[in-house]
Amino acid sequence: MKFPKPYALKTIADLIDADFVGDENYEVLGANEIHVVEKGDIVFVDHPKYYDKALRSKASVILINKKVDCPEGKALLVSDDPFRDFNKLTHFFKPFEKATQNISESAEIHDSTILQPGVFIGNHVKIGQNCLIHPNVTIYDHTEIGDNVTIHAGAVIGADAFYYKNRPEGFDKLISGGKVVIQNNVEIGAAATIDRGVSGETFISEGTKIDNHVQIAHDTFIGKKCLIASQAGIAGCCVIEDEVTIWGQVGLASGLHIGKKAILLAQTGVSKDLEGGKTYFGTPAEEARKKYKEMVYISKLPEIYKKLK
Amino acid sequence: MKFPKPYALKTIADLIDADFVGDENYEVLGANEIHVVEKGDIVFVDHPKYYDKALRSKASVILINKKVDCPEGKALLVSDDPFRDFNKLTHFFKPFEKATQNISESAEIHDSTILQPGVFIGNHVKIGQNCLIHPNVTIYDHTEIGDNVTIHAGAVIGADAFYYKNRPEGFDKLISGGKVVIQNNVEIGAAATIDRGVSGETFISEGTKIDNHVQIAHDTFIGKKCLIASQAGIAGCCVIEDEVTIWGQVGLASGLHIGKKAILLAQTGVSKDLEGGKTYFGTPAEEARKKYKEMVYISKLPEIYKKLK
Amino acid sequence: MKFPKPYALKTIADLIDADFVGDENYEVLGANEIHVVEKGDIVFVDHPKYYDKALRSKASVILINKKVDCPEGKALLVSDDPFRDFNKLTHFFKPFEKATQNISESAEIHDSTILQPGVFIGNHVKIGQNCLIHPNVTIYDHTEIGDNVTIHAGAVIGADAFYYKNRPEGFDKLISGGKVVIQNNVEIGAAATIDRGVSGETFISEGTKIDNHVQIAHDTFIGKKCLIASQAGIAGCCVIEDEVTIWGQVGLASGLHIGKKAILLAQTGVSKDLEGGKTYFGTPAEEARKKYKEMVYISKLPEIYKKLK
Repeated sequence: MKFPKPYALKTIADLIDADFVGDENYEVLGANEIHVVEKGDIVFVDHPKYYDKALRSKASVILINKKVDCPEGKALLVSDDPFRDFNKLTHFFKPFEKATQNISESAEIHDSTILQPGVFIGNHVKIGQNCLIHPNVTIYDHTEIGDNVTIHAGAVIGADAFYYKNRPEGFDKLISGGKVVIQNNVEIGAAATIDRGVSGETFISEGTKIDNHVQIAHDTFIGKKCLIASQAGIAGCCVIEDEVTIWGQVGLASGLHIGKKAILLAQTGVSKDLEGGKTYFGTPAEEARKKYKEMVYISKLPEIYKKLK
Repeated sequence: MKFPKPYALKTIADLIDADFVGDENYEVLGANEIHVVEKGDIVFVDHPKYYDKALRSKASVILINKKVDCPEGKALLVSDDPFRDFNKLTHFFKPFEKATQNISESAEIHDSTILQPGVFIGNHVKIGQNCLIHPNVTIYDHTEIGDNVTIHAGAVIGADAFYYKNRPEGFDKLISGGKVVIQNNVEIGAAATIDRGVSGETFISEGTKIDNHVQIAHDTFIGKKCLIASQAGIAGCCVIEDEVTIWGQVGLASGLHIGKKAILLAQTGVSKDLEGGKTYFGTPAEEARKKYKEMVYISKLPEIYKKLK
Repeated sequence: MKFPKPYALKTIADLIDADFVGDENYEVLGANEIHVVEKGDIVFVDHPKYYDKALRSKASVILINKKVDCPEGKALLVSDDPFRDFNKLTHFFKPFEKATQNISESAEIHDSTILQPGVFIGNHVKIGQNCLIHPNVTIYDHTEIGDNVTIHAGAVIGADAFYYKNRPEGFDKLISGGKVVIQNNVEIGAAATIDRGVSGETFISEGTKIDNHVQIAHDTFIGKKCLIASQAGIAGCCVIEDEVTIWGQVGLASGLHIGKKAILLAQTGVSKDLEGGKTYFGTPAEEARKKYKEMVYISKLPEIYKKLK
């Protein structure tokens, strides 16, 4: 989430009613998630376990719940509840805008693009040339779509992240102020869902093909020329490199890194980073050939048990 | 399913052309599923295996295909085909009403609630304050939604139960006359589906959060403050207690009871009741630490086999 | 895909700028996939591994990338790129027609059928008697639906096949020119997706019931009176015989044959053909009783290991 213009540190601190450490005129440019944060951005952290990671990230301003030593060239926003105050920022800079019609007047859509009936296009959406958006597709605010993109019926682009803080009084939702970016030559299947970033982008790179019912969660990055088959689910903040093949009903936990040209066979469940160039299978995922060997040994168990007797 | 007013036993018997045992003026208040049936209700049973369960349930009237001894204080409706005759009741008391517009005039929706374009709201639906219903959501007849509920695009609330009787001439559908009830502060993800009860309610309790593509089947009860991640599927007539966490792509068979604060790890497949307060993994589900041990032993199989040789 | 009238071989060859072997007036009737191709049809093949299969198939014309000996009574279309040229044919005979309204004027829908609000019906769609199409359903061009069919909200019938050729410059899409055929008394759940055939038909036979979120891919044939539970996924070109039961979250790879009355338990993953009349479980699928035995042996592993020590 980039702010519309740079804001002085003091202005931001006043906005969320927090203390600050640093030059009051320090320029703040936006806010983002820690794995993709950039210079000028705010990142928030509310658990001591992650203080170091946040303080050493590329973030220029750390919204934190303890007055720690401020790293040189950076600034702190000190709050008793960084999660709540990050939501205040999102609420201020990216307020929800109610739709007044099916296709927002603020949307920029190239003339050559076809929108079938029942399509919803939110505010500030951009869609390039020669796209085909099939019926009953929903495209939330701020989504950016390139050229030659086909989206099949019932797909939902840009719904909120599934991201909550567990408080005694109930789950507190992290407001999603990010967006979805879809590059050229992408195809997205029927009833597929791609959630927006929390403060950054969920990114689908050029030439990637996504099948029906696929779920791609907030802030995940999908590389170029990936194939993602039906009913696969990719949790938030993953990085999938180029030319990865993900077969049907595969599931990936959040924050994983999958190397270039990895192949995940159907129904595989991934809970750890995977090197590229290899084929994986099973839950939890292992190299397929190792898994196949295991399966052979399991089939020999009756024989082993007999021998032992 | 409550009837609009109490009906005399004889009136009901005439309606479905069945014999009855009991006082002809016995007051019948409604009909329901056996796991949630209440005093005054009809329950139906058509297999001797379940006669006892039905006769000893809280139901006041048992629609049954054999003239058994009638328990004291109760009544029987005796029919050669209770399934068919239960459908007659549902058809009479909850007939399908064709929509005449996108948002039914009979729906009661608080002024503060936002309905985005393309939303369908059926007959007799109630929606409370400060809800946000995103584009292309479908809310079937009789659904009840509390306050501060967000439903993301493409979600379907209140579709029919997947419930058929296998007859020689084809599957015979049990007509769904129940509804969906969603309490305050619930969030429901894009393209999620929550089916209506067959005669009772599918119930989502306060503060529960449901991710994209989740399936919740008929007559299932979800407790307070549960988290249900993307692509999880919960079959019919389950009871999920409070604060249960269900991760992505988990599946639950029908009629299961999951105890408070249980955690089901991703892709787990559950076919038996599970105690609360524990973490489960695998298909079929076991305690995660037991499953992890098994996985260690499986990885040692080559070594075991070598030793044996 | 049948052509609107027979075309002379030479006319087809000129259309795609290919050489031909055979009588220039040879009548060509259509084009299809190899597993369902019929006399008079074109089939394409671009890999030597499959030359024989294509040449010995029921196809009358083989679009091929090598000038092989032409089987008697058949004809060849010789092209440096059969995939590209097959797309040319589809593009010519089944061009995409942009919708001009929610329900196409070219659709034939029986008066007794109910269309709820938000339904999209494409061009040349046929729907029989007493059907009920719930809100926000999308039915793509050329779909054929029989009598007494119910389709729940958000379902998508007839989206394109997920079928690409991997070229150095990106994935090249095989254009879908086929359709979906749904026979009488079928019910389709909310947010289910049934893709059209590539050049043939995706076929759902009489009396089959399909639950929410089910995915059925291109050119798959589903027999009579099958039950397919929620979140199951069936890949392209499968043949599922009559009365097969597929429980929740089951996945099938492409091109499989499942015999009559087979039962696939929940979460099973199928990668090979399965005989009918048996119950299967696990990934990869095995007979359930074999799988259960394996599970017992696995649970004995700690004991086995102890004995060995």
